[in-house]
Amino acid sequence: MKFKVSAELGYDVKSASTLILNIHALKNGHQTILDEKLIIDPYIQAEEFVALNGDNRFVRVDIPNPGPVNIKYEATVDNCYQLRNFKKYDELAVNQFDPQVLTYLNPSRYCQSDKLYRLAKNTFGYIESNYDKVVAITNWVHTNVEYLGGFTNSETSAYDTVTQQAGVCRDFAHLGIALCRALTIPARYFTGYAYKLVPQDFHACFEAYVGGQWVLFDATKLAPLNGLVKIASARDAADAAIASIFGDVFCSYIKVNCELLDQEPFTPIYYPKSVYDGISYL
Amino acid sequence: MKFKVSAELGYDVKSASTLILNIHALKNGHQTILDEKLIIDPYIQAEEFVALNGDNRFVRVDIPNPGPVNIKYEATVDNCYQLRNFKKYDELAVNQFDPQVLTYLNPSRYCQSDKLYRLAKNTFGYIESNYDKVVAITNWVHTNVEYLGGFTNSETSAYDTVTQQAGVCRDFAHLGIALCRALTIPARYFTGYAYKLVPQDFHACFEAYVGGQWVLFDATKLAPLNGLVKIASARDAADAAIASIFGDVFCSYIKVNCELLDQEPFTPIYYPKSVYDGISYL
Amino acid sequence: MKFKVSAELGYDVKSASTLILNIHALKNGHQTILDEKLIIDPYIQAEEFVALNGDNRFVRVDIPNPGPVNIKYEATVDNCYQLRNFKKYDELAVNQFDPQVLTYLNPSRYCQSDKLYRLAKNTFGYIESNYDKVVAITNWVHTNVEYLGGFTNSETSAYDTVTQQAGVCRDFAHLGIALCRALTIPARYFTGYAYKLVPQDFHACFEAYVGGQWVLFDATKLAPLNGLVKIASARDAADAAIASIFGDVFCSYIKVNCELLDQEPFTPIYYPKSVYDGISYL
Amino acid sequence: MKFKVSAELGYDVKSASTLILNIHALKNGHQTILDEKLIIDPYIQAEEFVALNGDNRFVRVDIPNPGPVNIKYEATVDNCYQLRNFKKYDELAVNQFDPQVLTYLNPSRYCQSDKLYRLAKNTFGYIESNYDKVVAITNWVHTNVEYLGGFTNSETSAYDTVTQQAGVCRDFAHLGIALCRALTIPARYFTGYAYKLVPQDFHACFEAYVGGQWVLFDATKLAPLNGLVKIASARDAADAAIASIFGDVFCSYIKVNCELLDQEPFTPIYYPKSVYDGISYL
Repeated sequence: MKFKVSAELGYDVKSASTLILNIHALKNGHQTILDEKLIIDPYIQAEEFVALNGDNRFVRVDIPNPGPVNIKYEATVDNCYQLRNFKKYDELAVNQFDPQVLTYLNPSRYCQSDKLYRLAKNTFGYIESNYDKVVAITNWVHTNVEYLGGFTNSETSAYDTVTQQAGVCRDFAHLGIALCRALTIPARYFTGYAYKLVPQDFHACFEAYVGGQWVLFDATKLAPLNGLVKIASARDAADAAIASIFGDVFCSYIKVNCELLDQEPFTPIYYPKSVYDGISYL
Repeated sequence: MKFKVSAELGYDVKSASTLILNIHALKNGHQTILDEKLIIDPYIQAEEFVALNGDNRFVRVDIPNPGPVNIKYEATVDNCYQLRNFKKYDELAVNQFDPQVLTYLNPSRYCQSDKLYRLAKNTFGYIESNYDKVVAITNWVHTNVEYLGGFTNSETSAYDTVTQQAGVCRDFAHLGIALCRALTIPARYFTGYAYKLVPQDFHACFEAYVGGQWVLFDATKLAPLNGLVKIASARDAADAAIASIFGDVFCSYIKVNCELLDQEPFTPIYYPKSVYDGISYL
Repeated sequence: MKFKVSAELGYDVKSASTLILNIHALKNGHQTILDEKLIIDPYIQAEEFVALNGDNRFVRVDIPNPGPVNIKYEATVDNCYQLRNFKKYDELAVNQFDPQVLTYLNPSRYCQSDKLYRLAKNTFGYIESNYDKVVAITNWVHTNVEYLGGFTNSETSAYDTVTQQAGVCRDFAHLGIALCRALTIPARYFTGYAYKLVPQDFHACFEAYVGGQWVLFDATKLAPLNGLVKIASARDAADAAIASIFGDVFCSYIKVNCELLDQEPFTPIYYPKSVYDGISYL
Repeated sequence: MKFKVSAELGYDVKSASTLILNIHALKNGHQTILDEKLIIDPYIQAEEFVALNGDNRFVRVDIPNPGPVNIKYEATVDNCYQLRNFKKYDELAVNQFDPQVLTYLNPSRYCQSDKLYRLAKNTFGYIESNYDKVVAITNWVHTNVEYLGGFTNSETSAYDTVTQQAGVCRDFAHLGIALCRALTIPARYFTGYAYKLVPQDFHACFEAYVGGQWVLFDATKLAPLNGLVKIASARDAADAAIASIFGDVFCSYIKVNCELLDQEPFTPIYYPKSVYDGISYL
């Protein structure tokens, strides 16, 4: 499907600073960038690089002088996803996992799966298949965690959210990831542009490794799963920050947009449906 | 220098299980494996793989049957290191960093640098060069943290240790790393075999990215910096566990050894010295 | 009922030190001390005092010299309790509470009720009566928390246990208390000698203020509720430590015993029963 | 000295609710209430009670109907304090403490002194007298913690502040208390009206038990120590909340004022001075 995405970021720069942005749509076999541009006003040359451990696309912006800086990213993206009955996939044991996914079993800054082991086992351990476990986790997080802006901050982790039960999309994703990992299901953080998310903003959800494939889950249920343009997958928000700021810089505004360019009607997909059990972007 | 290293791990396996071990000496331009063997008794074929985001060498051992399993790794390793006056290296700004080191600025499970920002700034911010900051951090951790076995556990993080001020090599390393990252100095966890460490065990310390190079620091000061055989570098212990166990398995013993094979006399090196300021294994 | 209780505490004293012990059976309208003695070997005069905010009986032992010290407390205690259908008590609103119980709504060191508000509300908020809420909390803690010695330590709090789901009687009590307070039900920590507890040790459980009365609950379900000799009630374990040590002292052993002296048969009581719904000492 | 203090609290009440306020000036041998009034608009009868474990004066306001409620407290208070050279007081050992102060050695919700033991010992343990330790703690907190509104919230504790090093008067007090207790110096939370505090608000600081007397310390150094009208002393903010709300109530405004009524000139006192070393309200 074709989407037009954009992000505008305004910064108030007090002294020479560096920004590392991670707002570019991912390029891979399932997501093609038809066109894109990054406009920095006043003009600054930005250097793009790709992280060693993935395809995530970063740009480094070295701002030499104080003053306001406006950054606008626009892209037309064609992506595809798979709708499959992942429930019926053969369950994989750990020794059948692709070795490269094993890192997504480890606890990380915001996903302390090691501390959630008993809770995850007591709450979801009785469920037979890994797919059903992740669905149950997603529903449990959706039911128990209240979507509440301003309650959490950049230090809030899954260990907080599992008890405090309030937060935003990032917190929902971290808790889902941590509970999956605690049950030996690899899981990773997903950031993207989200069609029909109200209000428009960057969105975060998570992917779980089920049946040998990364399947998408969103415990907020705020955006259709088939309307996402992927920016990054990462261990958690620590590795997929929209912007990392080095210097005396304040963010003055963020405007995000995601529109559908296709002519065909869009049928939003939310779990669960009888005809399929999952959606996967690579 | 040439070292002979060995690790013997005994496991009591209750049911079919999988182990992922990270005990193999690293192979890279600065560390050559002259010979090595891995003996698993009873015999099981182990599969070696290298992590996508580094050179760390893992082996996966699928144990089909209950019973005791003994694993022995032995290697002869020739490594080299650089002694340099890193203090005098040109200081790099963030925008001069190799982009691939940026991930080592992010907080991780055991190194919540985001929560240590003010403490690091208040305690070390006045120090001029990054090299001197890391030396001061190392000395501060050494002075303030008591080496105390059994006080901490696998959940203990730098955020705990900075206040509770007791722990083992792993905790010293995590705190050093977290403080560096809080000051925008990339830092990573280092595991290895350590000559002259008493009693012999796996050792952990850390590397900080100073003047464009990874320089070794050990806040425990328990082992000479020039007697290390590197196993892994990683974000923190979550990514460099000696053994990750999937199944009903208990570790019954661990025996580690590191001997010098060279004929020349060994002059142990501890910071700081006037003729050099740092040691770097790649 | 009449019980004979005893506690023997052995200490290895390295230098002049002070111990504050809270092992004496409470004296109040419902618990009579028929006889008691405290033997300290070598002989030291102990000073007894009662805490300002309750009846808890402390003794202060000033140990002038290094060496082993053995302390033995023995008492014959006659206590009584009420079995009542607390479920049918009139529910009290906060403005009907005895003002002196309001302090037991506040969060304390080990019972961070303020952080458990949403979890308590989501899990137990739908239950109509306060009595039924406390029964549900007790059962929930019993079901979800694994009794596991050595997993927790003196720093472990309800905020840890609610997620980590393992601990000893103290941890079970703290979690029960914190969940009650989060639901505006006053709750306090209870320590005592426990008949038929295996193995014999000091025991901890909790009291909730229901229908204007303190009713006993024990989420461990390890000891009959009608076999307890009360030592203290307090905000949490911070205020009811068996021993507070000031000095260089190590505890070498603890032996506790509780025997029934009555001739009549003892019918152990555990919740719930149809003929009554609660037990209350005090 | 004579002060006129006032507090105005506005509430937006959504349904029948109960407020417990702790805004009345303390009455004791050192503080006399010359006149006072509490006006609740619309009129509601408020019930005053005193906490069992102290002199703190609470009022309970049962609000039967929704709507705005305005509460105004005004008092003329005559208090006195002692300026003494507490530094020269005889140092008391634990066994010389008034038994009733021992509870102020225990950790509490916001003052986890048990977790700060090593840090306190490493940082302040070398200092000889208790008085000098508390002065050093006060200065250390003042130097290391940044006064920053909005950084912390009602869940923030000393364990957070010791590392995160930012907060408001409440956080400064909690950290000071926790560090004192970790060094076996009883310490308690102090709330009051503060002359010359800018902007006017309720203030919090702490008292440490030095030489057998409660001596006042304020790590914020924002208000003169001799311009305080005491409201409460307590274990920590959990027991001395300005307002505890039971029901669906929002606070719409708080206005606080403290004026000097005496004619003599006011000489603000801040530590340390050569002619005295401490100030004590009882």
